[in-house]
Amino acid sequence: MSAKQATRERLARINPFRVMTVMQRAKELEATGRTIVHMEVGEPDFTTAQPIIDAGKAALDAGLTQYTPAPGIPALRDALVEHYWQRHGVKVTRERILITPGASGGLTLLANLLVSPGDGILISDPAYPCVRNFIQLVNAEPQLIAVGLAENFQPTLPLLQQHRRENTAGIWLASPSNPTGTILEQSQLAEACGWAQSEGLHVLVDEIYHGLQYVDRIPSVLELNDGAFVVNSFSKYFGMTGWRLGWIVVPDAYVDQANILAQNLYISASALAQHAALAAFTEESMAIFEQRRQAFRERRDYLSTALSEMGFVLSSNIQGAFYIYADISRFSDDCERFCRDMLELHGVALTPGTDFGDFQSRRYVRFAFTTAMENLQLGVQRLRAAML
Amino acid sequence: MSAKQATRERLARINPFRVMTVMQRAKELEATGRTIVHMEVGEPDFTTAQPIIDAGKAALDAGLTQYTPAPGIPALRDALVEHYWQRHGVKVTRERILITPGASGGLTLLANLLVSPGDGILISDPAYPCVRNFIQLVNAEPQLIAVGLAENFQPTLPLLQQHRRENTAGIWLASPSNPTGTILEQSQLAEACGWAQSEGLHVLVDEIYHGLQYVDRIPSVLELNDGAFVVNSFSKYFGMTGWRLGWIVVPDAYVDQANILAQNLYISASALAQHAALAAFTEESMAIFEQRRQAFRERRDYLSTALSEMGFVLSSNIQGAFYIYADISRFSDDCERFCRDMLELHGVALTPGTDFGDFQSRRYVRFAFTTAMENLQLGVQRLRAAML
Repeated sequence: MSAKQATRERLARINPFRVMTVMQRAKELEATGRTIVHMEVGEPDFTTAQPIIDAGKAALDAGLTQYTPAPGIPALRDALVEHYWQRHGVKVTRERILITPGASGGLTLLANLLVSPGDGILISDPAYPCVRNFIQLVNAEPQLIAVGLAENFQPTLPLLQQHRRENTAGIWLASPSNPTGTILEQSQLAEACGWAQSEGLHVLVDEIYHGLQYVDRIPSVLELNDGAFVVNSFSKYFGMTGWRLGWIVVPDAYVDQANILAQNLYISASALAQHAALAAFTEESMAIFEQRRQAFRERRDYLSTALSEMGFVLSSNIQGAFYIYADISRFSDDCERFCRDMLELHGVALTPGTDFGDFQSRRYVRFAFTTAMENLQLGVQRLRAAML
Repeated sequence: MSAKQATRERLARINPFRVMTVMQRAKELEATGRTIVHMEVGEPDFTTAQPIIDAGKAALDAGLTQYTPAPGIPALRDALVEHYWQRHGVKVTRERILITPGASGGLTLLANLLVSPGDGILISDPAYPCVRNFIQLVNAEPQLIAVGLAENFQPTLPLLQQHRRENTAGIWLASPSNPTGTILEQSQLAEACGWAQSEGLHVLVDEIYHGLQYVDRIPSVLELNDGAFVVNSFSKYFGMTGWRLGWIVVPDAYVDQANILAQNLYISASALAQHAALAAFTEESMAIFEQRRQAFRERRDYLSTALSEMGFVLSSNIQGAFYIYADISRFSDDCERFCRDMLELHGVALTPGTDFGDFQSRRYVRFAFTTAMENLQLGVQRLRAAML
């Protein structure tokens, strides 16, 4: 096989996001004058909170436009040290926290740090599609664990054990999960971690939607295991998507190597975004985030009830993020056609389940409640009319 | 070999940057009250130009804090289309230009787009160390072409031919080059491209220091070959290092795959940086950039003369970037010790040649003229004292 052929085959395994096609088509329809209800977008509809905007402007006035140290400015890493202490009662040293250009930057770094060609990574199906694609890009193998409503879309210990292979190098967990909004309870997380540790596997946990939860608290894996790797982001709870800022937490033994990779892979995250993000940890900003969380909770309550009443089947345990992963079997056996029809005929934009995996994915769609209540109500009204 | 062992061996090939150690130690010395002349830093000392700062603040006020399309906002891509037309007389379509999170993001994307494990990439030694490391990260092989003063630190056609192997998939050129500041003349570039094309090899060209040149014009590979891949950046000529913004140009046939990789690898570059960068193409900004280029030219003239007089051996053809790669044989046979002594004993921070490759690298150091003329003068004074 030629080099170019090998590259083509590797790239063929990287899926485009179908949601991009939905968004593109929604835009075209809007250009013709139609109103589209956007329930496809995985991005909060709130712009960045004013205190962060103001801090960004102050940083610009101060001329803070240079590279920062590769793992980030000390003040922001220290703010996260305090954050872990306040929210999770866990002491993480500054050295273990590396600021990254979005969670994407963190994913790239961890994939390069921990995975070699031929390795396998256990990951649930459905899951955030980028993760599978990252594993493919480093020529490793996503080892998919089919999870459905019965497992609340989260891998159980028996499932992990059953899918582990000789080449398995780690497990990837996500809590709260995109696209399902379900979380791993503390006991489940502890069980999975304990098993992985005993098997010599890396534990990687996507905590990107932490903060956006509709239960009193959600455990960080760091409370249970300081050998785990965490990916997090300022995009969702902190509302900073377009700034491209995230962070990772790595065990002590990996700090030096992670720093070298950070230098090579991205030099530093945006200086401006880092200085602005310092303002995320003020009381004023936290009050705004909590208000927004409350708004998301109300949307979840409304939309999940309305969808259930219509005959969609969904988890009764959507405890975080801003997604509902709904079974459409009663209406269709082809999510892509269903999404196309909903958009073209009824002006409702949704993401087909096939973006998130293979397991039963044709009978699922993802609803994002990232739009105002009145839009959700209009969307529900249109869906009801469509189902008649 | 176990999976973890394979990962360890792959990471062991990724070099840390010695310049980081120099910078860290310089900081420590400064904390004790000493004055250090910084000639190690690969970052312009000018903060971002005011029109760009103002545009950034306006974007913040307008709430432009969301993700952008993966390949960037159309207005910025169109500004680059116009830029290529004005500066290079070449028509590049918007589709072929993808905005990236720094040139680093562009490098990651191209490495994933074009290189598979086992492929070889021809690259000069010395070169910017990140490039070698990126090739290693995708488990490919940097095929180093030793180039010295005789070749003006640029690969010649016979050298390319001589180093080509069965597994060679592409050639990596840099003009102007970091660390040497030398450029490829149009005829050399054309010759290398023609050969690569006839051999079926990808042509990748680092044009990151374009604009920062001390000759009338410098050709872009796109003038000669629309099948080449270009990496460029807003960091150097446009003075936007800490914003993390760059771009790549890919041939038509690679546009779709590059877009899918962009979605997966980084979702989008910073929205704020993109909106701010629009102001880089105004007359007001361009006048500032040209003033700064003039300042860099004066520094180059001063420093290269002073170093030559002292007995350093350097290219008489430093035509771009802000580096001088100087042979220290007359003073030392160990660049790392030389740099350590200059810093510890004389307060001058330099980068050892061993950061940039293996070929004769122990007898080279890199001087960056990224500090004001009076600091360069102080540096020269200290170097002269040291050499007595």
